[in-house]
Amino acid sequence: MSILVVGSVALDTIKTPFGACKEELGGSASYFSVAAQHFDKVSMVAVVGTDFPKEHVSFFEGRGINMEGLQIEEGETFRWEGEYGFELGEAKTLSTRVNVFEHFHPVIPENLKDPDYVFLANIDPSLQLEVLKQVESPKFVACDTMNFWISGKKDELLRTIEKVDAFILNDSEVRQLTGEPNLLKAAKNILKMGPRLVLIKKGEHGALLITPDFTFAAPAYPVELLYDPTGAGDSFAGGFVGFMARCDDLSEDSMRLAVMYGTVMASFAVERFGVKRLAELDTFVILDRLKELKKLSEFELQLP
Amino acid sequence: MSILVVGSVALDTIKTPFGACKEELGGSASYFSVAAQHFDKVSMVAVVGTDFPKEHVSFFEGRGINMEGLQIEEGETFRWEGEYGFELGEAKTLSTRVNVFEHFHPVIPENLKDPDYVFLANIDPSLQLEVLKQVESPKFVACDTMNFWISGKKDELLRTIEKVDAFILNDSEVRQLTGEPNLLKAAKNILKMGPRLVLIKKGEHGALLITPDFTFAAPAYPVELLYDPTGAGDSFAGGFVGFMARCDDLSEDSMRLAVMYGTVMASFAVERFGVKRLAELDTFVILDRLKELKKLSEFELQLP
Repeated sequence: MSILVVGSVALDTIKTPFGACKEELGGSASYFSVAAQHFDKVSMVAVVGTDFPKEHVSFFEGRGINMEGLQIEEGETFRWEGEYGFELGEAKTLSTRVNVFEHFHPVIPENLKDPDYVFLANIDPSLQLEVLKQVESPKFVACDTMNFWISGKKDELLRTIEKVDAFILNDSEVRQLTGEPNLLKAAKNILKMGPRLVLIKKGEHGALLITPDFTFAAPAYPVELLYDPTGAGDSFAGGFVGFMARCDDLSEDSMRLAVMYGTVMASFAVERFGVKRLAELDTFVILDRLKELKKLSEFELQLP
Repeated sequence: MSILVVGSVALDTIKTPFGACKEELGGSASYFSVAAQHFDKVSMVAVVGTDFPKEHVSFFEGRGINMEGLQIEEGETFRWEGEYGFELGEAKTLSTRVNVFEHFHPVIPENLKDPDYVFLANIDPSLQLEVLKQVESPKFVACDTMNFWISGKKDELLRTIEKVDAFILNDSEVRQLTGEPNLLKAAKNILKMGPRLVLIKKGEHGALLITPDFTFAAPAYPVELLYDPTGAGDSFAGGFVGFMARCDDLSEDSMRLAVMYGTVMASFAVERFGVKRLAELDTFVILDRLKELKKLSEFELQLP
């Protein structure tokens, strides 16, 4: 099935306790699409400046990602600078230069207006709504957001959430959006806002999938080579939406497995800076880690 | 198999966003023993003051817990006062009155010196060593600790860790003890210090069991009725050690299942103040939640 992602493409400058990188290819649409293209055909809609290295466009195209929707605007590409401390938890943002992203309005090319699966990465919810107006009845729409939009554009965000199938966000965002500290109760509150599933990302602690019919608690892969957590969430979404598009089946079993593919892709993403590790994977390596995750969290019932 | 626990018995005054309690029966030995007695025979060694309500002793005895090792000293019982915020994470300690606990030296009664399984709850590691000197070659010793001892009595703690089979601690303590932010690497460092397994408690995020042979990632039960997280860790240890003693088998399968029984007991403990919820359980209720946890984290492998 076809997948459309709308999000950011950025040049990231990052410091972690293990190293540093400068102007590394990043952004939500980049991580998502490199993760998702392992499963199905991805098209990207995003904006970059005229300074954006052409080899990055070739890199995406070389991965089979349709880049017709990449807008190249006069000015500089979105740049983010961040630093992670000892525990590699939340990044400390050192600078954000939005640049051409400030006036971004997603324009979906005519031949991409009929995607089966859509991922609205973390951008202004008004822009997420603009995307939804341009696409023709996709089968499945997932969206992400961040604290900034929850506090600054809550009304628009609620209008977006109402229209999507899956809302993917992290645990602190779930609490912020609902004002409810209990994740399960908070997720059930979000289900009432419209989506048929809520997928809570808990970083190194795994993920929770909550639907009206079932709850699935996915363990995280305990990454020993954790290098840079940037992009883990979007890679997770890439694995999740990618597998959902591939199997094109909204059954409980497929959704559970899709969460595990998300977990797998996130676990790879954090092993190197940028999207490099994701790009070098092949399907067998992905399946090996999935099997490892299965073994990792398995236990047999046996009476005491 | 017989289980011996040495730890604290306290009177806790707690505030959470959902309510408050005053001088509630608490302490590590209390939570552990009420959880563990669902699986096997528990004896407790601890100290209380002359003010300790006799009905609490009867309560323990009524649960079949051997209280011969309870020392009643002139003075007041250990009292802790704490408050939990919105997310029910770390407690803010409002006051700690150590009272009779200050001069506590565990004395194991003659007839209890031959336990099969021992749990050294979070007390001064010098006292944990005193216990180990008094018991005769138990099959399995597990110990817990806290940040206070890691910073204040590290040498004594390392001497304890060297002698135990299982070291049970939370994620921030693992990082503090080893200076290593990556949990998996940190746990492997701890394995080199002596124990044959490290069990990392991650609160609402589940637990990680790390041994030289395998790693097991247990999801937490997403508790909707979360009321008071006090004692969750000791209840977890109670389920873990309790089941290990019950099945008396140190195989990988049993250890994985023991972690899940720990998870189950912790999930019940937090539904009410104190040990009340743990006390009212019966085995079928425990098994039902175990089955629910199995279903919660299960996924079927299927190729993309």
